[in-house]
Formats: sequence, C-alpha cells, structure tokens
Amino acid sequence: MLTHKLHMSGGDSKYKGRSYSLGRAGERLGNFMSQESTYNICNRFLIEKMATPLNETCATLERSLRERVPPLLTDLYQFTMAYAYWRAGRHNEPAVFELFFRDNPFGGGFSLFAGLSDCLLFLLNFRFTSEDVEYLRSVLPVDTDPDFFTYLKGLDCSAVSISAVAEGTVVFARVPLMEVSGPLAVVQLLETSLLCLVNYSSLVCTNAARFRLAAGPERRLLEMGLRRAQGPDGGLTASRYTHIGGFDLTSNALAGHLFGIPVAGTMAHSYVTSFSSLEEVWPQILAPCDGGDPIDFMCLVKGWLGHVCQLLGAKPQGVREGELAAFLSYAIAYPRNFLPVIDSYSVGCSGLLCFCAVALALCELKYQPLGVRLDSGDLCRQSVEVRHAFRECSKRFSVPAFESFIIVGTNSVSEQSLVELSKRDNEIDVVGVGTHLVTCTSQPSLGCVYKLVEVRGRPRMKLSEDPEKSTLPGRKAIYRLLDTEGHPQMDLICLSEEPAPKVGVPLNCHPLGLDKAALSIMPAKVTSLRSDVFSYGKITLPLCSATESRVCAQSSLQALYPHHKRLQEPEPYRVAVSERVHSLVSDIKMGNSKGSNFLLSI
Amino acid sequence: MLTHKLHMSGGDSKYKGRSYSLGRAGERLGNFMSQESTYNICNRFLIEKMATPLNETCATLERSLRERVPPLLTDLYQFTMAYAYWRAGRHNEPAVFELFFRDNPFGGGFSLFAGLSDCLLFLLNFRFTSEDVEYLRSVLPVDTDPDFFTYLKGLDCSAVSISAVAEGTVVFARVPLMEVSGPLAVVQLLETSLLCLVNYSSLVCTNAARFRLAAGPERRLLEMGLRRAQGPDGGLTASRYTHIGGFDLTSNALAGHLFGIPVAGTMAHSYVTSFSSLEEVWPQILAPCDGGDPIDFMCLVKGWLGHVCQLLGAKPQGVREGELAAFLSYAIAYPRNFLPVIDSYSVGCSGLLCFCAVALALCELKYQPLGVRLDSGDLCRQSVEVRHAFRECSKRFSVPAFESFIIVGTNSVSEQSLVELSKRDNEIDVVGVGTHLVTCTSQPSLGCVYKLVEVRGRPRMKLSEDPEKSTLPGRKAIYRLLDTEGHPQMDLICLSEEPAPKVGVPLNCHPLGLDKAALSIMPAKVTSLRSDVFSYGKITLPLCSATESRVCAQSSLQALYPHHKRLQEPEPYRVAVSERVHSLVSDIKMGNSKGSNFLLSI
Repeated sequence: MLTHKLHMSGGDSKYKGRSYSLGRAGERLGNFMSQESTYNICNRFLIEKMATPLNETCATLERSLRERVPPLLTDLYQFTMAYAYWRAGRHNEPAVFELFFRDNPFGGGFSLFAGLSDCLLFLLNFRFTSEDVEYLRSVLPVDTDPDFFTYLKGLDCSAVSISAVAEGTVVFARVPLMEVSGPLAVVQLLETSLLCLVNYSSLVCTNAARFRLAAGPERRLLEMGLRRAQGPDGGLTASRYTHIGGFDLTSNALAGHLFGIPVAGTMAHSYVTSFSSLEEVWPQILAPCDGGDPIDFMCLVKGWLGHVCQLLGAKPQGVREGELAAFLSYAIAYPRNFLPVIDSYSVGCSGLLCFCAVALALCELKYQPLGVRLDSGDLCRQSVEVRHAFRECSKRFSVPAFESFIIVGTNSVSEQSLVELSKRDNEIDVVGVGTHLVTCTSQPSLGCVYKLVEVRGRPRMKLSEDPEKSTLPGRKAIYRLLDTEGHPQMDLICLSEEPAPKVGVPLNCHPLGLDKAALSIMPAKVTSLRSDVFSYGKITLPLCSATESRVCAQSSLQALYPHHKRLQEPEPYRVAVSERVHSLVSDIKMGNSKGSNFLLSI
Repeated sequence: MLTHKLHMSGGDSKYKGRSYSLGRAGERLGNFMSQESTYNICNRFLIEKMATPLNETCATLERSLRERVPPLLTDLYQFTMAYAYWRAGRHNEPAVFELFFRDNPFGGGFSLFAGLSDCLLFLLNFRFTSEDVEYLRSVLPVDTDPDFFTYLKGLDCSAVSISAVAEGTVVFARVPLMEVSGPLAVVQLLETSLLCLVNYSSLVCTNAARFRLAAGPERRLLEMGLRRAQGPDGGLTASRYTHIGGFDLTSNALAGHLFGIPVAGTMAHSYVTSFSSLEEVWPQILAPCDGGDPIDFMCLVKGWLGHVCQLLGAKPQGVREGELAAFLSYAIAYPRNFLPVIDSYSVGCSGLLCFCAVALALCELKYQPLGVRLDSGDLCRQSVEVRHAFRECSKRFSVPAFESFIIVGTNSVSEQSLVELSKRDNEIDVVGVGTHLVTCTSQPSLGCVYKLVEVRGRPRMKLSEDPEKSTLPGRKAIYRLLDTEGHPQMDLICLSEEPAPKVGVPLNCHPLGLDKAALSIMPAKVTSLRSDVFSYGKITLPLCSATESRVCAQSSLQALYPHHKRLQEPEPYRVAVSERVHSLVSDIKMGNSKGSNFLLSI
C-alpha cells in the first residue's frame, strides 16, 4: 500500500516498489515518555541531546559563577557591619548563622532545597579585588580606618565551615537548611549572596516539582523560559533548578553547556514566516537515508500534499506556500530531526497538511520524522485532532511511523492549566513551559532568611515586634524521623550537643506553628538531615551534578506521603523542637530581662 | 538646659558647660526628601554615597555584561534555525525584526522601556568562543555541515543596525520599541538575548515607576531586593532599572560600583543580636567631632539613657543590654553615620531608648546622628510614636537635631501598602522596598516578543490561532502625536516609507484594540519615537547612564496625562496604525491565499 503511494507521489522511478519498513518497530509511544529514555535516545534526536557531563566542565562552571556572583554583589550594610566588628576587635569571634524560610511556597506542603553547589563555588572564590576595595573605600566614611581595607583585601573563606541539607532534598518551613560558621565578620559578609543563591533556586526547583506532580510521571517536560526570566541569570538558574525539580529538557543552550542538561528545540514562527515561496527552497533535493542518489524532494512532497489534502478533506487553496517552503527547507537541512511548529497560520488548513506531506516524503526516503509543536489555541483539542490525522495517514498510507510522532504543546502553560490538561482528553507528549515556571507567577519569591544563632559559643536570638520573625537560638542538629514504612513523619530540631533521637525510644518535643502542645513520638528510623559540606575553606563532599541532584529530588519526593504533596490544601508536615531548644528559648526570653538590671547601675 | 544634662550624664568634667549648637540649623526635614539633595549631601551620609560616575566604569560595565550574558545564553532553536538558513543560502538575506509587548503590565496604562544599554553592549560583544562552537557541534546532528561551525566562529554584529525608543521613555502596548535589521541568521540568533534583556528591565522599571507614583514625589525610596531577587543578575538588573524608574537609592554595592547609583545601608538585626553585654564594646571612648581628647562614651550614654527613660516614662529594666552595646559600638565606629535598626527586641521598651541615649551623647560631642530604621510591625504607628519621642527629646534637652532625624521604614512594602501608607498618618521619610519591587509580585513577567516583519524588502506577517498573536507586517516608523498642551495623545505606527504626519493636518488612522473604528486626528506636535542607536556594528548615540535615563523617565512620565498614569483602572492610551499599514494587513491576508493556488500545480 505504501509503496504504491510512494510511487504515485515520488515521481522518481528508482523508488518504485522499494520495500518500506520503519525502524521504529516495537518502540511505542510510551517509550518516548519515560524519563529513562531521555538519555537512551539522546543521540538520535535533536530534541534531546545531552551535553558534556559536569565533571568535565567544573572549571567552566566555577568561572561562570565567579563572573555572575562577585563578592561585591551584596548589600552595603554587610560592609558597614564588618567594619564595626573589625573596629571593635570582634571580627574573628566564632559565629554561627542559620539559613531557613518561614513558609512553604505556593500554598504547598513542601519545598525542595537547592542552590547549594552554587553557594559552595561562591565560597571557594570569595575574594575581593583591588577594584572592589577601592570602590568600598569611596563609599565608606572618609574617617574609616585604612587598615580595614587591607583586612578586606586578605579576606577569604578559609575559616568558614558549612553543614547543609543535600541539594534536591524535600524540606519544610522553619528547619535550618544551612549552618554557616566562621569568623563573625566573614560569615556576616556572606549573608546576601547565600540568600540570593538559595532563595530563587529553591523556589523555582519547588515550582518545577509541582509542575511535575501536576503532569504526572510520564509526560515529558521542557523548560523554555529564558526570554521571560527575571534577568539573564534568572534564566540560567531556572534551567538548572527546574531540571532538578523534575523537568527533562531545557531550551537554554548555555545551561546545556554548563550543567549537562539535555537541550531541545527546532524552530520558531519567524522561521516559518521568513519563507513566502517555494522558490526560496534550496537545495530542493535530498538523498535517501540509506544512501543513493539525491531525488527531487520538493516534487515528492507536492505529490504527498495532494494525497494528504484528499485524505483529510482539506482544501489545497488553504495551504500557505511559505509554510510548506519552510518545512521543506528545514527537512532538507535536518532530515533526521524534523519537528516543525505548525500553527504559524492555521493548523488544520495549512500547518498540519504541510507537516504530513513532508513527513510522508521523509518516511519514503526512510527518515524518521519526530513530530510537531503546537504553540497557540486550545492545545488539548488540537492535539486530539492532530493525532487523529496522524492515525488516518498511518492507516491510509501504511506508515506506522505516524503512530508514534511526538506532539509538543507550548502555550502559556501554568500549574493550573497543566492540572486541567491532565484531566482532559489530549495527545500531548511533551509540554513546554516558560513564563509561569521560571518567574513562579503565583509566588515569585521565597523568604529565606539568615539569622545569627551563636557567638563565641553563646546562643543568640532575635525577638521581634512580629512574633513569627523571632529566631531559634543555639547551634543545632536536625533529624528526620521516619515511620515504620520509611515515610518522613517529622523533622526535629535539637541542640547540637544533644544526643540523637533513638529508634524505638519515645521522645518529647514541641511542634512549631499554631499547634504548640508538647507531644511524645517514637521514631522507627532516624536520619540526620544535614552533612558537613564545606570545612575550613574546602568542599568536603563531591559537588552533585544537576542530574544527580535531580535523582535525589525525585526519590526524596517519592518517600513523602501523598497528602503532604497535594498541590492544594496539603496536610502540614510536622516540624518540632526538642525540649532543650524549647527551654533555651524560654531561658533567653527571661534571662535577657534579668541581664539588663545591672545596665543602669550608674 | 542641655549643658546641664550633659554634665549630669557625661561624667567627664571637661565637657561641663560647653556650648552646644547643632550644625543642621536651617536644614529642615524637607531637605532630606527632595531628589536633588540626594547628591548634595552624599559626602556627609553613609546612607547615600554616590559612586564613580558611569563614564569611568564603562569598560567594567561592558565586561560585566559580557560575563553575565554570553551569546550562548539563548534558545537552542536559534542555532537550528540559523543552520537551516545557512544550509539554504538564506543566512545573509536582509531581515527586519521588531520587539514589542502586547499588554501594559500590572493592569496599568503605561510602561517604561528599559534594557537598551544592555542590549547594545551585548551586540558589541556578540562573538562565539571556540568552546561555545564545540558545544554546539556536540548537540547539533552529526550530519551538520562542518562549514557551518566555521561560519559561526566568524559571526559578529557588524552588519546589524537598531532603531529604538530611548531608555526610560513611557511606552505602550503593541508599539514596536526596537527594530533590529541585518542578516537573517544573525538577527534571528539575537532574539532570546534581546528579549531577556528588555523584558525584565522594562517590567521592573515600570514597577518602580508605579511605586514612585504611589509614594508621591517627596518620599525617598530605597531598593533593597537583592536577596529575594530571581537569581544574582535579577538583583543587579533590578537595582539599575528601579533607579531609572524612580528609586533614589540601592542597598546593592555592585550596582553602586557598576552603575553609579547612590548606595545605602547601615546594619542588620544580626549586628544587634551579636552583642549581649556592654563588656563587648571596645573601644569605649570617642573624641568629640571638633577635636579634643577622647572621652568615656559609654559612661556618657549610660547617663543619657537614664534621662531618656525618665522623659519617655520607660522602665530601664526593659532595655536590652546587647542592643545598647551594639548601638554604642556602631556609634563609636561611625560617629557621623549613626542610623541603627531599632526593632530587634522592642522599639518602645528598648530600641528607641538606646537610640535616643546614644544620639544625645553623639550630639553632645557635636556629631550629627542620622536617624533610625524600623523593620517590623505597623510602620505608620511606630513612626509616629518614634517621631513624638524625638520631639520630646528635642524640646526637653534642647537638641534641634532630634527634629530632623530620618525614619526609614522597611517591612514587606508593596505597591498597595505604599498607597495605604500615603493615606495614613506617618513619619516615614525613606521607604525601603525589596521583594515586591524586584520580583514584581503582581505580575512577574512582561510578554515582550520579537517578530519578523520583513525579509529581502518584502513584508512578513504571522497570522495565528490566537488573533491577538498576529503581527503587523513591514518596516515601520513610529510617531508620538502631542496635543496643544504638549501631552502625548496617540502613538501612530506607519510604514517607514510613508511621509511623517504633519502638524495641523488631519490624518486618518485605525486604533488598535477592541475599538477598531477608523478615526481622524489632527496633531499639534509630532515627534519620532525611535532613533538609530546602533548602525552596522557601532553604537551611534552615547550610552545613557542610569542617572540620565532616570531623568528621561521622570520627564516622560511627567508629560503623560494623569488619567493614563492612574494605578487602578487607567484610561487607555490610544495606539493606532496608519491607513497604509491597515491596507497592507488586509492585502497580506488575502494575498497569501491567492498565492497558494499555484502550489499544487502538479
């Protein structure tokens, strides 16, 4: 049947009667969706090519970060405070800061912690240039002691250590995710940069995880938000951390290069509209996939177009010549990677017909077209119509390749529209998301804060006019208590000198939040949530690649009970402090009032 | 009266009976608020120091941009399209793209155009490195012609030209803000980067202008969003473009260095909580401002604290020793720049009392304290209470300096809360805004697009399944028509070969949007909205500094009728196309259908 049609349309007798068999036998549509296959088929498809792995580009990564995040990219008050510490001889006092956020974003029940690798690379390179120091000299008061600038020039993070949650771990509000210890003035100077690196990374990573939950595990997700991101680095950060959060692909070439994320992309509407006539197509010939002399490809396509219009009941007059020219030209340039955008004029009257004609011609020459992209209108409805047309072609022309084309949908997709899409009939295999993903429309910031908890071994606490802005004093250890089935049950914040909770031994604790009644809990398993990742200026654990952190994120999410992961009205996960932390808070509240009695002994 | 108090509190007989006169006579509170004074007093106050002007740091600026926005930071499909053009021999065809957005952000009636300087610096440095090209080779299909990579290596913007609206100009939806012309493949490759550079810059600049409108012209505005920005560059971009939009100061040191924006900042809560005892204060002495031997400053402050508590009816027991120690220490380090954050524990019970005591002691030594920062709770109510206390001190201790202290308020300020604040009684002189400003909470992205309008001198147009996604074909000239009072009345989109509208001559045009009835208008003044800013690889107008663009923005906003500037439900500004543009759209819609008749002549 197919060979008959080929003969009718091709016009080149060489191809008459050739046996026709598509190489994709056995590869069903489902295969294209699974996350595992992302990497297996990366050598075949432009839509998913994986770049050099991270370890080969670590130097590039470090350089890129140093350039994007120089240590001067911080708030001025870090320097004014550093000077005041230095002036008082307190700059080298050992101090401990904690980084945490107060609420899970997007009204959700969880977050993913991200940004750690960037923080560590930032610390490695934390050194002020002479130019930086001269600038600071020009803005600090004229009577600033000049020795302070000499001190700044010699600063680095060789006395700084960090304990942190692994990148990609599911985390919760109020739990200290990073502990930064070192000389008071240095760890104070790090505040803004570390917050900047963790805040958006964790936010967008969490957002991506929610899109993944909305899409289900099978559908492929493509991040394509660079042009709408909040600044160039917003785009680069988004590409990395949405991959960790569960996206499969990015459109961002630099992110592919730096982070080894599979990149995807074929054409924009401008490519299509740049063509107006078939005369612009050059060359017009194409050699078959398995060798042989080039044939007149345009003629072949024209033939197929007639059959397609007939089959689908479409008027040839509605076909845009420029669109056909664009598809032809692209297919000739990329015969193995044909995936055009088909809505530049009208999907049903032109784009779909042009695609089918070119794809049939490619199949005739034993190439395997990939599919189509829809970028406007009702994606669900159109994808069903397009799939129907593909099946008609497959049946009528006996081209099984048409059964397994990918349909990519990209049109202002939000978390909500993805939820709705998953409920409706649709045939979309790959969803591309830009604006709503990278700018986190429903909540564009995470309120991570960096609070002093200890100086010279003594706990510190900030009370506040807003009670929720108070901090938890003292150096901590954080434990995640699991139930008998291995699901996280509660995060427990202890003082670092306390013994770890014991499996099977009940412990008393005080949950944070509105429900503050003390409770007793018996853990079935206890894990320590943080590790030492940076010690006296050295990275002490291998940096995770984006792919490794992505695996961590997905398995961490997997372990969490579904009711905590619900996108709407999740059940809150419990976070508690130990009895000793609880007592310390009370002591400090009382103790400070006592302490001030001698203040006015004048 | 004051000398009597000084004697009572100071404890150092040297100072007894000294005459006391504050140098700020005649400088009323109002002076601190006007925008002009930002620069005049920059040598006196840490809270507003202006850095090296732009022209001295242009090389730094260019380097910074090159590092933050390498040409590989773009969508992969730009390269796949470039290859297809190159393969078809079309890469050097002259092409024209236009950049515009479809709706004003934040439900408003206007936008500010920004990001142009960054775009031009990006074009100047647009060259792929060998490493970039090797990466692209690794992701493009294996059968890509190797000569294409040689072509990429030699690419630059020497054949590209740009006509654009001046940075900071008030602009409206659907008006082409930039026209980019040059070889098809090159101008296509620029798409994502130019969009990324304009989208967020214009968005955050417009957001800042709305905050400025909400705050009124007098109140000083400080941008402090770096830690909550969407990535490090989000923070840097925000600092520059919020300054252009109307903010006076930034906390971001790198922005101060790169863009010459006045920087501000003194201390965080962590500075306060890092102190727990007066024993940590060292040195405890301070020399008077006008020379002389250092005196026991701590003793002086302790004396004043007693008087302040008595005056304000506060209990000395409530004063936090650590807070007093922090303020003392800071004042000794920065006697000329004292502006502490006073809400680390309790404003009324501790922070305010400590501030007044230290400030009175500084005044006694002829220093001029600056004021206080409030960072939590009800800013309006607290500022009124704090101002009342200052006036009490001024009156009781005859210290006029207390009449002109600055009160800085910083607590999750949004456009809405700023509008409300302006309606309530308050004494806030400087408002610091972070999250809601830089992440543009109410609409975190602007939908700028980049559309092909001409190839080889022939107009191009994209129709679409979504009618509002259609484009306007052809190369254009844009005019702003002013009324007899000099207010902008309408923006008119013409074809570039049309004669410009003439003053006093009625012209027919077609407004865009829902109301599409043709109308006749007679302009009193006509200005051309765009200029040639980049011609064949060279910047043709001097780049504007942030300060210059800020002036442009404020005068452009000034000219606009208030009803277009209303934050809520503004009256839409009219944008229209000429009769010739209107005809061209109709012709193309018809013409293309005709053109495809010969398509199937097989």
